[in-house]
Amino acid sequence: MGRVTARRRVLRIRDGVPSHRPDTLAAEEPMEIRVGGRPLTVTMRTPGDDFDLAAGFLAGEGVVHAAADVTGIRYCAGATADGGNTYNVVDVALAPGVALPAASLERNFYTTSSCGLCGKASLDAVRMVRRWSVAEDPLSVGPELLATLPERLRAAQRVFDSTGGLHAAGLFTADGELLCLREDVGRHNAVDKVVGHALRSGLLPLRETVLMVSGRASFELVQKAVLAGIPLLAAVSAPSSLAVDLAAESGLTLVGFLRGTSMNVYTGAERLASRPAG
Amino acid sequence: MGRVTARRRVLRIRDGVPSHRPDTLAAEEPMEIRVGGRPLTVTMRTPGDDFDLAAGFLAGEGVVHAAADVTGIRYCAGATADGGNTYNVVDVALAPGVALPAASLERNFYTTSSCGLCGKASLDAVRMVRRWSVAEDPLSVGPELLATLPERLRAAQRVFDSTGGLHAAGLFTADGELLCLREDVGRHNAVDKVVGHALRSGLLPLRETVLMVSGRASFELVQKAVLAGIPLLAAVSAPSSLAVDLAAESGLTLVGFLRGTSMNVYTGAERLASRPAG
Repeated sequence: MGRVTARRRVLRIRDGVPSHRPDTLAAEEPMEIRVGGRPLTVTMRTPGDDFDLAAGFLAGEGVVHAAADVTGIRYCAGATADGGNTYNVVDVALAPGVALPAASLERNFYTTSSCGLCGKASLDAVRMVRRWSVAEDPLSVGPELLATLPERLRAAQRVFDSTGGLHAAGLFTADGELLCLREDVGRHNAVDKVVGHALRSGLLPLRETVLMVSGRASFELVQKAVLAGIPLLAAVSAPSSLAVDLAAESGLTLVGFLRGTSMNVYTGAERLASRPAG
Repeated sequence: MGRVTARRRVLRIRDGVPSHRPDTLAAEEPMEIRVGGRPLTVTMRTPGDDFDLAAGFLAGEGVVHAAADVTGIRYCAGATADGGNTYNVVDVALAPGVALPAASLERNFYTTSSCGLCGKASLDAVRMVRRWSVAEDPLSVGPELLATLPERLRAAQRVFDSTGGLHAAGLFTADGELLCLREDVGRHNAVDKVVGHALRSGLLPLRETVLMVSGRASFELVQKAVLAGIPLLAAVSAPSSLAVDLAAESGLTLVGFLRGTSMNVYTGAERLASRPAG
């Protein structure tokens, strides 16, 4: 895991006073995900938990839904022409009967819809591939508990303090217990790593859990939560319009601007019923 | 431009006190970029400046380098099966002789390298497609002026104040004059829109300019700056290791954590020579 960070020399300027010092940066490397030997996508990610990342990416695209859908994950063997290894290429073997969607994954799922390219088509595409619904999930979380999650996430981010450059995603129980934390230079990768870890542990769908992310809530993050069966997504920053639309359509509770004792609840507010005092 | 934001009803909770109110969100919609009618990629973006986004995306991939490389950009005409339009599909016509790289753009440029998939291959790929070097750019900017750019960027972000959900990219002269500002739910899109606007205005390479971004500095943002001929990239937050490596290899000045009167200079510090007082 030493590659999660990298050291570089930096000129720091404070109030006009320069000083040279070593600095710790978040590592970023490309990783190619293959399925059955076929190249699927390349993502720039922070090395570490690569198999979780690959499994979680496929879960987020609706390709796999359970641990049994994946029969193996391995680094592609062999050295390159100049002697480097190919550890940044991960190949996923799918179980018989688990198919990639007909449309080319190489482009994008949103183009698989036949009704043109728009927000509605994106919502339709998610509905087409999801295996379960989060709408009926009985999760109930008090706003007071939710308000503690950003600090719990930060406290668990060992790497964050040294680089300031990593996005985090944390999976919590309804009681605020941290089940899984992952960090990455990419917000989507951090969520993929959490979901992939859960999938490979046989935990999907992730009923009655809360996914907390350090940044914004985009459409794609809501998509990943819905396809993992997570009923509540909380973000430190703002959601986009399409993120709110997909959350509403899916029955997911979407909380944004979760800071201090304040938050905005965009959808599914019934899950935030305050618990009786005492 | 009304689609840059969208209104949704939200439950706001402050110190346990709930209130319902309308909220303004950053709009997010998918957009497909085609070249000569061939689908190339889909990006989730904030609507607006779509032609700039398409042109800038292609500049950032090293496909186009000048306004003359693009002979036309248009929305694909026609309605979808359910009557929707296809304004989210943009088709770019390239001038004769301007070719897409041999390898499939549908996957990713980083896979075009024959030497495996690693950070070095990513650096090589950028060097292969770039048309000019920023290493000899004579830009000189004082740290005092650089320190004013985040506030200038924020002051110019009309939309930011209403949504809190948009990334910004601003192109400045060496004197701190704002040449172009673009916002988007995606950091990369905001930069693509700035670069695309400049390309279509015949301004590439963007010598002696400064690109200021509101978030982190990733490898891909450095790549976009280098391919646009921008010699200095400044970010409010942290760079990744590979962003620093590409900046060093390209001769680009990379500044991170630009906040208040403080900043970290990761590469190309010679461009930050303080100007003599008085």
